[in-house]
Amino acid sequence: MRPKIVLFGDSITEESFREGGWGAALANHFTRTADVVLRGYSGYNTRWALRAIERVLGAEGVGGGEGVVAVTVFFGANDAAVHDRASAFQHVPLDEYKLNLRSIVSFVNKRWPEVVIILITPPPIDVEGRLRYVIIYYLFQTSGLPERTNEAAGAYAKACISVAGECGLPVIDLWSRIQQLDDWEKSCLRDGLHFTCIGNDVLFKEVVDTLRKESVSLETLPVDLPLCSEMYPNDPLKAFESQI
Amino acid sequence: MRPKIVLFGDSITEESFREGGWGAALANHFTRTADVVLRGYSGYNTRWALRAIERVLGAEGVGGGEGVVAVTVFFGANDAAVHDRASAFQHVPLDEYKLNLRSIVSFVNKRWPEVVIILITPPPIDVEGRLRYVIIYYLFQTSGLPERTNEAAGAYAKACISVAGECGLPVIDLWSRIQQLDDWEKSCLRDGLHFTCIGNDVLFKEVVDTLRKESVSLETLPVDLPLCSEMYPNDPLKAFESQI
Repeated sequence: MRPKIVLFGDSITEESFREGGWGAALANHFTRTADVVLRGYSGYNTRWALRAIERVLGAEGVGGGEGVVAVTVFFGANDAAVHDRASAFQHVPLDEYKLNLRSIVSFVNKRWPEVVIILITPPPIDVEGRLRYVIIYYLFQTSGLPERTNEAAGAYAKACISVAGECGLPVIDLWSRIQQLDDWEKSCLRDGLHFTCIGNDVLFKEVVDTLRKESVSLETLPVDLPLCSEMYPNDPLKAFESQI
Repeated sequence: MRPKIVLFGDSITEESFREGGWGAALANHFTRTADVVLRGYSGYNTRWALRAIERVLGAEGVGGGEGVVAVTVFFGANDAAVHDRASAFQHVPLDEYKLNLRSIVSFVNKRWPEVVIILITPPPIDVEGRLRYVIIYYLFQTSGLPERTNEAAGAYAKACISVAGECGLPVIDLWSRIQQLDDWEKSCLRDGLHFTCIGNDVLFKEVVDTLRKESVSLETLPVDLPLCSEMYPNDPLKAFESQI
């Protein structure tokens, strides 16, 4: 059975198969070697994720759950929404966020003891880009104050890194990584939160690199069925003999 | 369990999760409603596909095979390779192509009696674009004569449509559909055979439309877990009560 890499997260995961998206890029990268299973839930925080986790990753989840080799856990952007502004209903206090992340990790660890779990911190927030978007799309819901701030996202990113450390898990510090790039506010984010193609590409490469360090890579995963380049021109079906 | 849509085909399927690819666009379209499972095998013809079908779609295939609601069968571009030129080893005679397609359909029908099977004809060939590509990449393998022709692709497309008719299956006549577009040789094909973003988009829309006619659509498939827009701001977890 072909191995599965599960992407569990919020809207940045749910929309990861859009044009240029990091999820689609992963599926393309692992074509013939692993299935990338999309489990993104737009707007979700860790509290809702935990409420839904049995359904998402339990016995009936991800196609019966066989063959799962890696899971990315990518929440925090909604937990970090400011508690008394337009997205207050998505806010989760920092301490609960940490507890919830630990519970998610614990669930995945129990379900698949050998699985590689990668935590991904929330990305940075560009308040100007966010306000522009919020004013255009949610004119009547907003006080004019940002529903997310970069400081809050940074605090949740730090908390995510700390949980990864406690659990001995690899973590992608996306909050810091994105801010290393020139003009990251516009080059990486299209609405102050979600990714442009460049932002998607940063995350794609980070996930591939992190998986490789955990021995999940094109070098370690078997290729499903003979490659066309392995066929003997005079007897192509011979290549199947060793594999089927 | 989330329904699965399986894409079974050759390189045009295998590379369908590249940027702008029709497979990734399908996965994005069906996000939260269906998993799109990629089973593309570059260079494969129907003879090789049939040799491998038990492994690809059998008991161990597509994650155990539960929940499969639709399968696209998209072969012919390699079968139609000219029998005595550079890609001769991929060639399958027209009559055998038809027999093989019938056998593939029969296998899928037995495996999942209720499944929607969509046949897709090979795309048209732009010989000039193909020769340019072949000369650049396979300089030493080529006689200067095209390894594929549009006439041959057309004959295989016609055969595919005829098999669909016999089996009572929906078919996407991609060979004709693409040639209706202005400057299709360059706008839809990047190397005389494989798709540009525009070509990918044509196929994506055809697949969505065909699935809809077969009652596989965003209107008929349930959404996995409550949408963020369905959450009560004062009690978001309430939305889970009816679903979990």
